[in-house]
Amino acid sequence: QAHAQSDNFSVQQLAQVEQIKLQALESDLAWRLVESLTTEVGPRMPGTPGDKAAVAWAVAKFKAMGFDKVWTEPATFPKWLRYSESAAIVSPAPQALHITALGNSISTPKAGIQAQVIEFQSLAELENAPDNAAKGKIVFINYRMNRNRDGNGYGPAVQARRDGAVVAAQKGAVGYVMRSVSTANHRFAHTGGSHYKAGVTKIVTTAISNADADQLHRLIALDKPVIINIKVQAKSMGEGTSYNVIAEFTGSEYPEQHVLIGGHLDSWDLGTGALDDGAGVAITMAAAKLAVSKGKPKRSIRVVLFAAEEFGLWGAKAYVKANKASLANIVAAAESDFGAGKIWAFDANVHDSVLPLVSDIAAMMKSLDVEYLAKNSARGGPDLIPFRPFNIPVFRLSQDGSDYFDYHHTADDTLDKIDPEKLRQNVAVYAVFAYMAANAKTRLIGK
Amino acid sequence: QAHAQSDNFSVQQLAQVEQIKLQALESDLAWRLVESLTTEVGPRMPGTPGDKAAVAWAVAKFKAMGFDKVWTEPATFPKWLRYSESAAIVSPAPQALHITALGNSISTPKAGIQAQVIEFQSLAELENAPDNAAKGKIVFINYRMNRNRDGNGYGPAVQARRDGAVVAAQKGAVGYVMRSVSTANHRFAHTGGSHYKAGVTKIVTTAISNADADQLHRLIALDKPVIINIKVQAKSMGEGTSYNVIAEFTGSEYPEQHVLIGGHLDSWDLGTGALDDGAGVAITMAAAKLAVSKGKPKRSIRVVLFAAEEFGLWGAKAYVKANKASLANIVAAAESDFGAGKIWAFDANVHDSVLPLVSDIAAMMKSLDVEYLAKNSARGGPDLIPFRPFNIPVFRLSQDGSDYFDYHHTADDTLDKIDPEKLRQNVAVYAVFAYMAANAKTRLIGK
Ligand SMILES: [Zn+2]
Ligand SMILES: [Zn+2]
Ligand SMILES: [Zn+2]
Ligand SMILES: [Zn+2]
Repeated sequence: QAHAQSDNFSVQQLAQVEQIKLQALESDLAWRLVESLTTEVGPRMPGTPGDKAAVAWAVAKFKAMGFDKVWTEPATFPKWLRYSESAAIVSPAPQALHITALGNSISTPKAGIQAQVIEFQSLAELENAPDNAAKGKIVFINYRMNRNRDGNGYGPAVQARRDGAVVAAQKGAVGYVMRSVSTANHRFAHTGGSHYKAGVTKIVTTAISNADADQLHRLIALDKPVIINIKVQAKSMGEGTSYNVIAEFTGSEYPEQHVLIGGHLDSWDLGTGALDDGAGVAITMAAAKLAVSKGKPKRSIRVVLFAAEEFGLWGAKAYVKANKASLANIVAAAESDFGAGKIWAFDANVHDSVLPLVSDIAAMMKSLDVEYLAKNSARGGPDLIPFRPFNIPVFRLSQDGSDYFDYHHTADDTLDKIDPEKLRQNVAVYAVFAYMAANAKTRLIGK
Repeated sequence: QAHAQSDNFSVQQLAQVEQIKLQALESDLAWRLVESLTTEVGPRMPGTPGDKAAVAWAVAKFKAMGFDKVWTEPATFPKWLRYSESAAIVSPAPQALHITALGNSISTPKAGIQAQVIEFQSLAELENAPDNAAKGKIVFINYRMNRNRDGNGYGPAVQARRDGAVVAAQKGAVGYVMRSVSTANHRFAHTGGSHYKAGVTKIVTTAISNADADQLHRLIALDKPVIINIKVQAKSMGEGTSYNVIAEFTGSEYPEQHVLIGGHLDSWDLGTGALDDGAGVAITMAAAKLAVSKGKPKRSIRVVLFAAEEFGLWGAKAYVKANKASLANIVAAAESDFGAGKIWAFDANVHDSVLPLVSDIAAMMKSLDVEYLAKNSARGGPDLIPFRPFNIPVFRLSQDGSDYFDYHHTADDTLDKIDPEKLRQNVAVYAVFAYMAANAKTRLIGK
């Protein structure tokens, strides 16, 4: 495949892009990285020994891969640990419920919280209920999440995870259980962040699998009181510390300018964090390596593995704070944190003057089956949210997330859920992106 | 659809078969039955309160459905209860393992059994190992089951479940864990029956999910000692008693002759036994009801819901013993115990002289997309094994079990795994079968 030279790239550079693409599509580097992380480290919830092991793993891997600089930067976060969780329908039909505590949940008494369940179909319905609607009861929100390639069902569903326990307590509830934020038809409960509100009684906050939510719904529909028992042992432990792990291939012409790609190194504790976000870690580490396989880049290529994303973007916030002075040197940023599905779309969020370069990049992604959306309104991954006030050039390499929420934040998020071929396509797309943003004549700038 | 009269059926009877088919394909009776059983009773392991509730449920449902006779017959079995189970990799990479105790397993000490794991690829490989090959270790058999429509991967895989702990103990092992008998790519451990052997030390016997088996395999391949800890609390409780629940629509001409269809009422404790065997229970109950919707049958149609199948066909054995004198009155027997997939094939095991009647039945199943195999060597479901010495006419209505072993004996065997449309097709096939075997001029006889 021969390409005519553009304003931004020589013919030789474009030929190198093609070579990198081919190399990436045949490379098992990302697979070996995510296999190693999920096997040799496994779960790595912020503040746990697994988190510490993951930081050591990342530092060692970056060094072994020959990055020019490897360093860590601390990030603090409110530490929380899960010890045990279980639940059961006590009456009218005794049986187990598959449940998980949401992050930040308080414990129940050892014997559990036992009460009648009252069902609502959404957080809004609960909010609109009278003040004592749930007095002495366990509130159950049975909101069903939609499946979508772009994950747009997540936003509406996650409200009940974030705020459910607060609203339930305001209505007099003694406990809170929700249908998982999930598209799965398997019996896994999905954990995830939740919060309490000052002045509102803290009640245990949990999620059950879709199958268990259906079961509870059917029993409640029989019009006999449904009593359940929820047992959670968990603990908030004050401030914890973890580390962003950062590595760079240094640019030859503009070393201070850099492409920033990455994922988050932490995971929830239930699975091994393969899709969330071992894949993103591996894709971006491998892509950086492949992007420099033809020689030093003009600008630096930096991989940032963010800490404590799951507890509230704590690593990203710390990164922005610690690197405020150099954020203006970011020429392009993209985070991979949506599993390991094929990348189907590409878009930017940059100053209009540099859109021709974006088009050049998009053109080289076509053969990877990536569509250029050309809306120029990309938002980037979750860890790029704290960067927003700084108007850095942001890119979105959109993965197909149709089945992401089948596994997200469950025990079922394990290595076997990653398709090695799709993983390689991701690496190729990120490598093309990193190479071109780092080596273009034009420097990308934000809006 | 008009049918020419055959030696066995009048034109009017064949028209009734067509009407029953249509009715069955539109009926939600089986769905309502399996929904009720799995929701209002839930798990029903032999000897548990759920088992008792299931017997009461079946008696009440049969009566409500208008069966002419409803009765129970006792069956005893060796009672076993599971209290708790968990496991973890202790070193080199601490993480949880999703494990389940196999039926009949002994307990570990409260602190668990902790030892190095030694991996074998099959029971045969373990059998061929030297005498002290597993001395002080936990044996891990990593045999992978094949996926097949007819479930023929189960036989080879289940050997390691039945005999693994015995052979492991003979090689000096202190514990036994196997890759689940499973085709799933989800993180559920599959339970199932196992046994010990007199004179061989009893060791804890367990299965882990496929994802966990892969994980263990990868860690062992790194060539550092892999230490795991297995905690099981379970107990053998002596003799338990449950009940076969039996119901009959009585025949008008030959009431003592009967078609026998059914499934097993018990289930394992982890899921709600929707596929195994709530579906079979519901399909055969509904089919019997539909088969008599045009009037009393000539011969009786009997539904038998067998007890304690999962612990070793105890209900079926008791049935054969208690009904020895009348087994010769069975004109056709079929058990549904392979999930709720579409029935794709039909075969018999009968005396050659009655094969024309089998062909008549097969002809009426064609429009239901059921192929007649015409091998005349059907074996029937597991509960028909104790009937074999009596040469009764046996039929096999073969379900597509391609995904049966994704769910079999796991917590994930729940109602949502049943496709209502496929369930109706099953009911239609069973109803056609029951009607025709009960109303034919010819009496079916065995070989
Ligand atoms: Zn994530
Ligand atoms: Zn996450
Ligand atoms: Zn069964
Ligand atoms: Zn079974």
